[in-house]
Amino acid sequence: MRQSKLFGKTRKDISQDEKSINADLLTRAGFVEKQMAGVYNYLPLGLKVFRKIENIIREEINAIGGQEILMPVLQTKELWEQTGRWTEMEPIMYQFKDHHGSEIGLGTTHEEVVTDIVKKNIASYKDLPIYLYQIQTKFRDEKRAKSGLLRGREFGMKDLYSFHTSEADLDVYYKKAHNAYIKIFQRLGLESFSVEASGGTISKKFSHEFMVINKAGEDLTVLCSKCLWAQNKEIATLQAGDKCPKCDQKLKEEKTVEAGNIFNLGTEYSNKMGLKFTDQDGKQKNVVMGCYGIGLSRAMGTIVEANYDEGGIIWTKNTTPYQVHLLSFTKNDKKQKEIVGLYEQMKTEGLDVLFDDRDISFSKKLIDADLIGICWQLIVSDKQDKYELIDRKSHKSQLLDRETVIKTIKKFYNV
Amino acid sequence: MRQSKLFGKTRKDISQDEKSINADLLTRAGFVEKQMAGVYNYLPLGLKVFRKIENIIREEINAIGGQEILMPVLQTKELWEQTGRWTEMEPIMYQFKDHHGSEIGLGTTHEEVVTDIVKKNIASYKDLPIYLYQIQTKFRDEKRAKSGLLRGREFGMKDLYSFHTSEADLDVYYKKAHNAYIKIFQRLGLESFSVEASGGTISKKFSHEFMVINKAGEDLTVLCSKCLWAQNKEIATLQAGDKCPKCDQKLKEEKTVEAGNIFNLGTEYSNKMGLKFTDQDGKQKNVVMGCYGIGLSRAMGTIVEANYDEGGIIWTKNTTPYQVHLLSFTKNDKKQKEIVGLYEQMKTEGLDVLFDDRDISFSKKLIDADLIGICWQLIVSDKQDKYELIDRKSHKSQLLDRETVIKTIKKFYNV
Repeated sequence: MRQSKLFGKTRKDISQDEKSINADLLTRAGFVEKQMAGVYNYLPLGLKVFRKIENIIREEINAIGGQEILMPVLQTKELWEQTGRWTEMEPIMYQFKDHHGSEIGLGTTHEEVVTDIVKKNIASYKDLPIYLYQIQTKFRDEKRAKSGLLRGREFGMKDLYSFHTSEADLDVYYKKAHNAYIKIFQRLGLESFSVEASGGTISKKFSHEFMVINKAGEDLTVLCSKCLWAQNKEIATLQAGDKCPKCDQKLKEEKTVEAGNIFNLGTEYSNKMGLKFTDQDGKQKNVVMGCYGIGLSRAMGTIVEANYDEGGIIWTKNTTPYQVHLLSFTKNDKKQKEIVGLYEQMKTEGLDVLFDDRDISFSKKLIDADLIGICWQLIVSDKQDKYELIDRKSHKSQLLDRETVIKTIKKFYNV
Repeated sequence: MRQSKLFGKTRKDISQDEKSINADLLTRAGFVEKQMAGVYNYLPLGLKVFRKIENIIREEINAIGGQEILMPVLQTKELWEQTGRWTEMEPIMYQFKDHHGSEIGLGTTHEEVVTDIVKKNIASYKDLPIYLYQIQTKFRDEKRAKSGLLRGREFGMKDLYSFHTSEADLDVYYKKAHNAYIKIFQRLGLESFSVEASGGTISKKFSHEFMVINKAGEDLTVLCSKCLWAQNKEIATLQAGDKCPKCDQKLKEEKTVEAGNIFNLGTEYSNKMGLKFTDQDGKQKNVVMGCYGIGLSRAMGTIVEANYDEGGIIWTKNTTPYQVHLLSFTKNDKKQKEIVGLYEQMKTEGLDVLFDDRDISFSKKLIDADLIGICWQLIVSDKQDKYELIDRKSHKSQLLDRETVIKTIKKFYNV
């Protein structure tokens, strides 16, 4: 992509009401544009990162048997009344009347809808287990939406629901999902660990949260830095300063971002909504359920909060919007042609390149490249025959010939 | 995919309140599940078709320089008041107050939002033209949502917006978009033609609608079947029975589905919202705009309305959920292995196969295969050594050996 054609401007300053680091950097670098508190437009660079996160999640959820569906945003009051959550969720749910006077809510989560669908599509134990997921926009009327992409009023989410004949079968899948989550966060470049937590408004049973230690986090985790034993502060039986029950190390209390969560729902929803199956013995039983969420917008915000420096964002390998940022610094015709040749060659060899061909100063190009945060910067200038390859994270630079440059980048991305 | 694992049941009858053919067939075949009037869940088969439609549209819009973005569903009253459409759109827009008392609307269309974004990201003629699009869910509180996927309250849409320095530049792009639309509908397998129409609530200038002749359509088009001269009935200067102004043939009046539309917006929105650019002569001018929509859910519904028989749906080549439906009819162990081998071979050779491995009667499998409507049905039974390949549309069958079967199917899809 030629940067002269790319929609979305970098800027020095944004409005003073944006206090969060992720929103500040993503806005200044041209990834997102705020529409209102907690609601963002994704510009081409931002959507590219969003899609990469989406695809990593999709691949790993497909790998554990997930079948993708798409459930609606608009939901009826009647459905949510079956579980008693119409009233319970009122403080954060957008609820209103349509022109017919029917009460509608915008989906904050989809347990009611998915349970209703499954009810219409299964009958016996032979139809189970089933794993259904969607990647869909969710809506929550957050009182304070001041954390940028970490806590939105409108945000992308992957929600997976599993349906089983027994607790034992759920347990097996719960562990599979747990491992898939570890893989997902690894691929995203986020160091996460799981902690025991309460079920909140989702479940009366236990749950696990996947936490990333970060000062922007809104959760507190009691944590052993040696053996990674951890509990969410809300349910913690031990406090900072106490000894770790596993290794005797002194426990700490860290700010964490909840990047994902998995819930044992038991038969709570199936019982309330009448989702039953006929077992091998001919008896009607409640289906056992689990649910598993990852916020996509939040993941994007967390990656930024965990990876930036004074110059801007530092994307991780699998989430970088482009694989290499080619910066041209020459007015020389022959050299110009050489750069275009290099750009075309890299594309042909399967690399995704952002080519800064804009007619602006070299220093402005460097400032923008640091702000945007693509993993590799490649500089072609009049001053030298070789190409300068800079690692965005360490700022270490190497002077390399054309073939070595391409080889180095391809090796980094396994292209 | 093994059909025994596929989520979504076929069924004989659905609720009597579903009057539309597309919704009836798509529900009975397990593609969608109604949530409320005009709001559908997409089950795995349905989402697969939806994604195919989405990708065809994305490819063709990228090919005319479109840059993909994602704009929000939640929109502020203030923004829509800038164009006066908060009140104008009230009859079909979901409008409500959030917990802070701020008035919010759900996006019915995105002219206001996109104009606001572009305003923040362009300054001079050098930044133009720009072509931005999104594939996003839209919301309209339709009074009568009785046409299944043809007229939803919540539906998928591709909306493209173009921004130009002059009417002349818009005209060039308008033609490009027109051609891209023709290509898109061709690839979807829909016979469409464009007609002149009014701008409706979108534009005071002219527009073109892409129509598909179908009895389920809610539009009326005055049409010459010889030379394809056509006008939307709403603005038509000639009526059925009059002579075509181009070829003297008698005009007809046909029911049509509006599958897409393109609008010349002129400077209406840029003027009202203050979207200006500095021209080469240093003067501030209003940006000239166009907008271009295709309903994805509607396209899916239209394909069904235009392609079905008494047995069920007949998908078009590029929208079929799977490329071949493999039907096993044997209890013989050796033959079972042979079928699994064939299934694996077809997958290895790049074919997308739905394998009906369910333990049900052969007649039920055939009925389901016709209902689901995959282009090719491939039958392996004990009765014959060769394989029976059936064209879903014509029901013509051929007995072929393994290699010829695979060759035939691959040739059909250009795999």
